[in-house]
Amino acid sequence: MHPDFRLRLDRTAQATEDLLDRLLSPEPLAGEIARPPRLLDAMRYAMLGGGKRLRPHLTVETARLFGREDEGVMRAAVALECVHGYSLVHDDLPAMDDDDLRRGKPTLHKAYDDATAILAGDALVTFAFDILADAATDPDPATRIALTLTLARSSGLGGMAGGQMLDLEAEGRFAADGRPLAGDEAETLRLQAMKTGALLAASVEMGAIIGRADTEQRRALARYGQVLGQAFQIADDLLDAEGDAATVGKATGKDAAKGKSTLVSLMGIEAARTRLAGLVEEAAAALSPFGAGADTLRETARFVAERSS
Amino acid sequence: MHPDFRLRLDRTAQATEDLLDRLLSPEPLAGEIARPPRLLDAMRYAMLGGGKRLRPHLTVETARLFGREDEGVMRAAVALECVHGYSLVHDDLPAMDDDDLRRGKPTLHKAYDDATAILAGDALVTFAFDILADAATDPDPATRIALTLTLARSSGLGGMAGGQMLDLEAEGRFAADGRPLAGDEAETLRLQAMKTGALLAASVEMGAIIGRADTEQRRALARYGQVLGQAFQIADDLLDAEGDAATVGKATGKDAAKGKSTLVSLMGIEAARTRLAGLVEEAAAALSPFGAGADTLRETARFVAERSS
Repeated sequence: MHPDFRLRLDRTAQATEDLLDRLLSPEPLAGEIARPPRLLDAMRYAMLGGGKRLRPHLTVETARLFGREDEGVMRAAVALECVHGYSLVHDDLPAMDDDDLRRGKPTLHKAYDDATAILAGDALVTFAFDILADAATDPDPATRIALTLTLARSSGLGGMAGGQMLDLEAEGRFAADGRPLAGDEAETLRLQAMKTGALLAASVEMGAIIGRADTEQRRALARYGQVLGQAFQIADDLLDAEGDAATVGKATGKDAAKGKSTLVSLMGIEAARTRLAGLVEEAAAALSPFGAGADTLRETARFVAERSS
Repeated sequence: MHPDFRLRLDRTAQATEDLLDRLLSPEPLAGEIARPPRLLDAMRYAMLGGGKRLRPHLTVETARLFGREDEGVMRAAVALECVHGYSLVHDDLPAMDDDDLRRGKPTLHKAYDDATAILAGDALVTFAFDILADAATDPDPATRIALTLTLARSSGLGGMAGGQMLDLEAEGRFAADGRPLAGDEAETLRLQAMKTGALLAASVEMGAIIGRADTEQRRALARYGQVLGQAFQIADDLLDAEGDAATVGKATGKDAAKGKSTLVSLMGIEAARTRLAGLVEEAAAALSPFGAGADTLRETARFVAERSS
């Protein structure tokens, strides 16, 4: 592993934690009436206390390609993380995936209750857009609105939320005979591109926006982000198929139990591993316009493929 | 009633319906991967088919004070309505207020299921910010980002979502002995200012932003919006205390059953009516800088106070 990689990943994780802690303070901002303690605490429970912070890392490392390293970049990164965090809170609800454990601790609705978890998730989405719209993120309104559009479009109906809908359908939740409609490879790829790929790609894209990348650079980075998302999902499916819950920090073997198609179930473990290695190569190649400056992002693709949790 | 008022209210309601119908089409936008039919249908079920469209009306009439009447104004109005709509969908969930009926038809989770209702709500918040961020709303990025900030801040932790949290607490949902913590007048006003007032005030404020109101005009309109929000809530509490479900289109008498404080329970019906009449006067007076041009907004305050559903 590139010597710099772990250092940089950890540094961004710490900066994410610090900024979230500051932003989720009891002091209301201008235009806020009050911050109800129970809701604030629930948002803090959902957002603070670790995680790899892969999405913030992607934004930070992409912006750094263009020499941009400041609080504004961290704000964009934290906004993304709030959207990621809200999606986990809502996905864990009993009405959705019904998970009791997340990163080894009780999920938000277990620690609080369903109503508080729904509201904390709602307030986190909104908070993400609040963060992006504030002038502290970037002095240029055009940049802030471009960040807003990218985050909104990647996480809604045509992206992350839509992907979660397809995922519930794939579990046969709504099939007349109760059986899952196992998808083929194209359908499975599309579902995954929406559910997890879109927000990962947005993390890279938002780094490019805030770094003022030109059209060609944005195209290269979009390709990288897309391939990285696919790699992430295959690695996730492999973990679900092979990992044990203690290491992974959440329940495993759930896909098979639900009869859900994954690339692993469609292709087999060996072929999925080969595909994964190919994607890591492809991600690295997509970054060729940036030379050695993009080594941390290349290393990130390897890390995503090899992670054990 | 001012002869123009009903006409204008109905016209905006129709324009809201038409634009929502167009925006919630099956065609994905650039950057969207696909629009899953079940999720799109649920969003349409939540958003289409009526309602007074009071918030869009406020935005449209405020922007019209400044001569602005175009599709961009309608987009801002519809974004607001999506946030209002999502909040109803989530508030109706069994884990929250557990309502089966909304405007005389089954609530979204009854017509679909809880998971779909949670996701449709999520996708609607995101969609609101997508609409605002798109250049079609206003050519000036600074205007679009100001709209975004206003909507985000009024509807999140320090506004609408926070108000719903306080409301659940006021129902004694989390009290150790299970009894509601009945609030005094100041607490009740704050709760209501957050839960319903903030978004109503934002409807006026967004009209002012898109109309390029100057500082003094914005201050006058902010006062109007704030007072209107209070009037709305007292009228709502009176309807809950006195209305019957068939006319109101949803269950009534719920506040008393839950032991919740409202201005009506704190002051009594007569005093609440007097306060309401005073607020209508105050709203009209706040609009004095705009002369007769603001008569539709004045009429709106009367309408809000006198509505029967």
